[in-house]
Amino acid sequence: MILTVTLNTALDITYRVPSLRPHGSHRVSEVTERPGGKGINVARVLAALGHRVTVTGFSGGATGDEVRTRLADEPGVTDALVPVAGATRRTVAVVDEHTGDTTQLNEPGPLVTAAEWAAFQDAYEDMLSGVAAVALCGSLPPGLPVGAYAVLVRAARAADVPVLLDTSGEALRRGLAARPDIIKPNADELAELTGSHEPLRATQDARRRGARTVIASLGAEGLLARTPDGMWRAAPPARVHGNPTGAGDSAVAGLLSGLVENLPWPDRLARAVALSAATVLSPTAGDFDRAAYEKLLAQIPVTAA
Amino acid sequence: MILTVTLNTALDITYRVPSLRPHGSHRVSEVTERPGGKGINVARVLAALGHRVTVTGFSGGATGDEVRTRLADEPGVTDALVPVAGATRRTVAVVDEHTGDTTQLNEPGPLVTAAEWAAFQDAYEDMLSGVAAVALCGSLPPGLPVGAYAVLVRAARAADVPVLLDTSGEALRRGLAARPDIIKPNADELAELTGSHEPLRATQDARRRGARTVIASLGAEGLLARTPDGMWRAAPPARVHGNPTGAGDSAVAGLLSGLVENLPWPDRLARAVALSAATVLSPTAGDFDRAAYEKLLAQIPVTAA
Repeated sequence: MILTVTLNTALDITYRVPSLRPHGSHRVSEVTERPGGKGINVARVLAALGHRVTVTGFSGGATGDEVRTRLADEPGVTDALVPVAGATRRTVAVVDEHTGDTTQLNEPGPLVTAAEWAAFQDAYEDMLSGVAAVALCGSLPPGLPVGAYAVLVRAARAADVPVLLDTSGEALRRGLAARPDIIKPNADELAELTGSHEPLRATQDARRRGARTVIASLGAEGLLARTPDGMWRAAPPARVHGNPTGAGDSAVAGLLSGLVENLPWPDRLARAVALSAATVLSPTAGDFDRAAYEKLLAQIPVTAA
Repeated sequence: MILTVTLNTALDITYRVPSLRPHGSHRVSEVTERPGGKGINVARVLAALGHRVTVTGFSGGATGDEVRTRLADEPGVTDALVPVAGATRRTVAVVDEHTGDTTQLNEPGPLVTAAEWAAFQDAYEDMLSGVAAVALCGSLPPGLPVGAYAVLVRAARAADVPVLLDTSGEALRRGLAARPDIIKPNADELAELTGSHEPLRATQDARRRGARTVIASLGAEGLLARTPDGMWRAAPPARVHGNPTGAGDSAVAGLLSGLVENLPWPDRLARAVALSAATVLSPTAGDFDRAAYEKLLAQIPVTAA
């Protein structure tokens, strides 16, 4: 069993409009909804790979009910969300059918009280027993201390559960100090953390700050992994075109599944890159194209760096 | 008691963003929600004027639950919405804090089945007994016959309840044939109905098509009323600047309240124009500024046309 934590879960709403014009009035031609937030996206991909996965984090209000109702329909995903009084946020992705561009509007999320945060920590510690790995994903909702991820990383380490942290900004900086097993920053997040735009130097610096392994996701250039066992680069065989939404979450799912299956690092990285590329290629944002994934998996060059 | 019908009710969501950039990702700085749809907006203004008002129409899904929960907090408004299986639509107004402009995204609404429409008609006919006036407001949700308003107008006339119809396009054209007491098209709706952009001619044509009274709302020029008792123009004393959202709904509330109070036409028109202008002046979209309303009420010139 893998546990994913999404402290700021979301009801992800996608609107298709013929053409988005600021200051205009638009009839939305198609509305789709699904549970979202990075950890839930990771869980969906893990379940598709055949892993049993539990999702936790907060849910509340009518939007939280909607998230839970829809999660119950996702095969292989167990809902262990913890209730809060505030309402789960919505994210709205407006797809312009003319240009294909997406405009994103993200609500901040519910104000979580100190008592709710304490109740979550208790529930989380109970969940850690018997878990093979845990992923801590995404932004923090309002009200949570900026060191929230450090607390969750420490609890995982105390329970001997490998922990992957995928967040950004101050939440990442503070979480790092608690020494997570893996972080997976993208180029911008890594530069913000370390002040360096040079991935070789920045990953080294990020390890010094506390991460056991740093996997930098460098867009079309794939992954750069700095691990205790060595350094590797893994990249798709050719540039893939499509919608990058969720590609990072698919990479996290690839890394986590490889970890619990005890794959060697090059195999984990190849899986993460293939899943990520297959997500970009999928017509539905956040889903991955299984045929493309299986085909790509044998074609990812992984080289020692 | 006044009854307002909103077949396509909505959960109106307002997002404030620092600056709306197509293809960008935005953190929403403020989220507000309230029950919407034209008939619900009309009811809110009627209640603020001291009238008892019942709202009906359809509600369904988590968004419908949210609408009903919030309606329960609106003083003076009784909820008589009829349940449907589909979810009540959302509308999203994105306010750009830099320019002040609003970009509107409107979901289409739930697919209403024939059985749900039949159940609504039964409930509506029961509600008509003991009602002083009824307003039929806004667009039709998917699934309803385009002649839906004609059916509701006929039922009101059969029950001897004065009926105001405020809709547009084919729904207005078909509703007119059932001879509503009042229609309140704006200049565009009137031109679409009659083919004429000349209000004097167009209001005459609209009466020929079946409306007993036509009140054309002409933006800054106020109202042009063609009634069985004569023709009047009523306009604000000076141009008002602000957000016109809901100004038309406030005008409908003014006309309806004047009708049930048996005011002479000039007083009804002055009230409608003053409410409409006080809505444009209000900082909150759709609310009216009561002090401005009371001050304006004595200043609206109403002239025979």
